[in-house]
Amino acid sequence: MKFGRILRDSPDGKIARLVVVEPEKGRVIDLARAAALHYVATRNATTDAARAFANAAYPGSMALALSMGNYLTDHTPGIVASTGDDASLDMNEVEWLPASDPPVLRDGLNFLGHITGWSAKMGRTVPDAMERVVPYCQNSPAMVIGNNATVPWPGYINHMDYELELGWVIGRKVKNLTPENALDAVFGVTMYNDFSGRDLQQDEVAIGMGGTKAKNFAHGIGPWITTMDEFKDPYSIEMEVRLNGETKGKGVSSDVLWRVEEVLSFVSQGEYLQPGEVIGSGTLEKGSALEHGIKLKPGDVVELEAKNIGILRNVLGEPEQGMWWPTAQPGKLVPTS
Amino acid sequence: MKFGRILRDSPDGKIARLVVVEPEKGRVIDLARAAALHYVATRNATTDAARAFANAAYPGSMALALSMGNYLTDHTPGIVASTGDDASLDMNEVEWLPASDPPVLRDGLNFLGHITGWSAKMGRTVPDAMERVVPYCQNSPAMVIGNNATVPWPGYINHMDYELELGWVIGRKVKNLTPENALDAVFGVTMYNDFSGRDLQQDEVAIGMGGTKAKNFAHGIGPWITTMDEFKDPYSIEMEVRLNGETKGKGVSSDVLWRVEEVLSFVSQGEYLQPGEVIGSGTLEKGSALEHGIKLKPGDVVELEAKNIGILRNVLGEPEQGMWWPTAQPGKLVPTS
Repeated sequence: MKFGRILRDSPDGKIARLVVVEPEKGRVIDLARAAALHYVATRNATTDAARAFANAAYPGSMALALSMGNYLTDHTPGIVASTGDDASLDMNEVEWLPASDPPVLRDGLNFLGHITGWSAKMGRTVPDAMERVVPYCQNSPAMVIGNNATVPWPGYINHMDYELELGWVIGRKVKNLTPENALDAVFGVTMYNDFSGRDLQQDEVAIGMGGTKAKNFAHGIGPWITTMDEFKDPYSIEMEVRLNGETKGKGVSSDVLWRVEEVLSFVSQGEYLQPGEVIGSGTLEKGSALEHGIKLKPGDVVELEAKNIGILRNVLGEPEQGMWWPTAQPGKLVPTS
Repeated sequence: MKFGRILRDSPDGKIARLVVVEPEKGRVIDLARAAALHYVATRNATTDAARAFANAAYPGSMALALSMGNYLTDHTPGIVASTGDDASLDMNEVEWLPASDPPVLRDGLNFLGHITGWSAKMGRTVPDAMERVVPYCQNSPAMVIGNNATVPWPGYINHMDYELELGWVIGRKVKNLTPENALDAVFGVTMYNDFSGRDLQQDEVAIGMGGTKAKNFAHGIGPWITTMDEFKDPYSIEMEVRLNGETKGKGVSSDVLWRVEEVLSFVSQGEYLQPGEVIGSGTLEKGSALEHGIKLKPGDVVELEAKNIGILRNVLGEPEQGMWWPTAQPGKLVPTS
């Protein structure tokens, strides 16, 4: 199945709603509405009790919905079959939210072609530490954006870039996974665009503490999540990125440094993965504009697409001017010669 | 005032409760209980309605309580004065939770003595990028622990260490702060122990994406939060760390690379700070055992203390054996010579 999140009008203002997406029928089904109708029709529930129960079972938060364990995958097919027709909306007219509201957002660096291509363009030597430790970073989830959203562009970034990635959406609270059971923790797959400021990233990587302001201004997640049962394996997903309609990078998710099972196991060692969190696959080879010698401009349209997932489309906004930025302090730490 | 979180027994099992801490009286005040009594006594509320309202105003989550804006600081003094005596518990008998349940956890690297001391011990050159970009990382909040908690020790870490830090607790959702208004966003200060695996950290820093498994197995936060009005400024807080009762590092929070106002402003550029999130001050000079040539052992007791905050005490657990770890892949990325 395909699950997403949209905004709907209500007397309380716009509210988030969980939906099933049926691209072949051109519609989404509002799950809290469908479930309430279903409980009235099949369980003798009163309308008020059915609405309260349905909103608890299908909250607007994907993280919260997945935190209820198997409820989402166990009960949704029956509800959609029973009352989906009466709770459906035209999928071309809805306002999309990020497919998940991840409590934690992490991102791998795992496709071999991108590791070498990115490093060459950044003038960096590939560290052999990546052959011992699975590379990934912690991103901030404060600025996740969904399909069709404008990408906020902070004025301190000059060299703007996109990144073509899959997002592995975690479905349960788990710790200490092993490669044998790691894929069981994955609820589904979405597209993940890890927008990046390449100029600022140079200094951030040199410090060694991970990307911060070069990364956390916008993370595209969507358009929706396709559950894992719809994929043969994590290594044969066809994906591509288009810039203003022109295909720039394209390939299959096979060329990995670490197996996806190893990435998930590594991230979960000694700490919990959280329901609804998104772990980026790392950028596909030629999946950044940097690898093509291109810098993004305001108004550029970036589309990430994968077969059986869909298209995550975002438009670059205008750079925000007048933001505060620290004044460099040469010589404060490192003696100037 | 001082705010903390404890666990209490209930018919639903142990639940988190928000408390005001009065160390001079040796007690904590359960705020949801005090508030319910207060609403009945002063507003003609029924017991059931008062309890429901009190639990919404004083949830067990510090992040959620702070998300209600000024309610916590505006209303708590009156409630404590009115019904605090009837809702108090002996502070030496309570089970402490992490002082906040941070939605996001970040950590600076900001005390000059530690930057040079840590770098020397790790055999690393201090990058001059730190004079242009404020260094900080994103940590995972999945493994926060409170006062008196045992520190989980994953078996893949050999060289275990502590770090003496303050934690700046954010009180409101804000973006694009400037040094002029940045401190207004801070609700209070707590102690933060950023436990670290120094052996693994070598490879993680070399990759440049930030600490992951060397950092995210345990983050000590507590014992409670002292609100900002109780401090003269962020630069005169006296702090120290003791290992098995012996003082190892001690000093005042003044020797910074970037002013605290600049750190907070930088982190908030282009993204939201979240109520309840904790931003580590960075480790004080000589605030790690590494700087003394010491490795921690199971059973070691680490105490972080700051004047007007309190003591965060943690005991190192036994290393967990049998955890999965990736098999190194020499030559997979970097040709072996």
